[in-house]
Amino acid sequence: MARPVLHDYFRSSASYRVRIALNLKGVAYDQQMVNLVSGEQRGESYRALNPQGFVPALEIDGQLLTQSLAIIVYLDQKFPEPRLMPADPADGAHVRAMAMTIACDIHPLNNLRVLKYLGGELGIGEAARDEWYRHWIAEGLAALETMAAPRAGAYLFGESPTVADICLVPQLYNARRFSVPLDAYPTLLRADETASADPAFAAAHPDRQEQPR
Amino acid sequence: MARPVLHDYFRSSASYRVRIALNLKGVAYDQQMVNLVSGEQRGESYRALNPQGFVPALEIDGQLLTQSLAIIVYLDQKFPEPRLMPADPADGAHVRAMAMTIACDIHPLNNLRVLKYLGGELGIGEAARDEWYRHWIAEGLAALETMAAPRAGAYLFGESPTVADICLVPQLYNARRFSVPLDAYPTLLRADETASADPAFAAAHPDRQEQPR
Repeated sequence: MARPVLHDYFRSSASYRVRIALNLKGVAYDQQMVNLVSGEQRGESYRALNPQGFVPALEIDGQLLTQSLAIIVYLDQKFPEPRLMPADPADGAHVRAMAMTIACDIHPLNNLRVLKYLGGELGIGEAARDEWYRHWIAEGLAALETMAAPRAGAYLFGESPTVADICLVPQLYNARRFSVPLDAYPTLLRADETASADPAFAAAHPDRQEQPR
Repeated sequence: MARPVLHDYFRSSASYRVRIALNLKGVAYDQQMVNLVSGEQRGESYRALNPQGFVPALEIDGQLLTQSLAIIVYLDQKFPEPRLMPADPADGAHVRAMAMTIACDIHPLNNLRVLKYLGGELGIGEAARDEWYRHWIAEGLAALETMAAPRAGAYLFGESPTVADICLVPQLYNARRFSVPLDAYPTLLRADETASADPAFAAAHPDRQEQPR
């Protein structure tokens, strides 16, 4: 089988999620960096791969897959161990809901294209854009802390990593970059700390990827 | 088994998705309306159910489930027929990516809380807010049309409804409310037309739900 190719950007949280999942599954892959800051993702050749013009996109098994959570479900089906989503439907729904609290309700609001629209079309200044960024993180993480606390262990759900942790770690990386206070989220911080000690998470960190020139 | 209770709002697209899924599965349920316009979802009693303060939330099998796509996966596992996601991992990834193009990259940007923040904290006027709303729909639907076209049938993927159609129909309902031009998306319109003739979709339409007083 050809090695999978991840179309990637070091600071993209959605790409960071897929890097973690590939590492947890022990799937070796090649990386193709797409320079988001120079706008490469909006160029014709990348759009031919992914019409959304987003990273990540994963070439695997002769397919081109997009959307980080769809890619992670695919990986979980093709490489069953370790499971990234609990088998029990109710436990699975809980874990997926936590993942989507980040992937649907925090991350898309703080995406580069949205910040650009705020600054460009709407003429919002940098301080107000930063406030926007922090606002949606704080709102989402507060809800996530309440959701996670009753059933968390060392990770957000029990003692092994799930897709919820895979979404959490990149989101907290972003939160720290924008100096969002995190003390009110002890359950999230504990899961983040556990995950950061796991080589699969550590190797996916933005600082350990190719940096754009 | 107690009948499931859907905490619902007639115009919430995420609730609309879950109504369609319950109807497709033939699961009878009760509805508990949450008045989003009066702010009931932010009240203490509703937040005790769902810390995010969003609809839908589904009480089922002694659980309280949140996040529409997590609820739909749960329903698909507990009530296997008809399948809402293809069994083949690559087909499933394609269908999930289409669903998430709507659920992650269009819908959250146009949520009520976001429009309120734009109008309130950022002082953006109604015309520019409407433009924002239309912008993200147009950008997302254009990508979705390109993604869907090669493998669509009467529905977005083949000849039976999937979670992608379940996300599409409420999103097109919103698009029409805001007069977004749709002629450039023939594949999406065909799937929407097919779905609208299906009683499970039709019965979930906002006009057929309890209206707030």
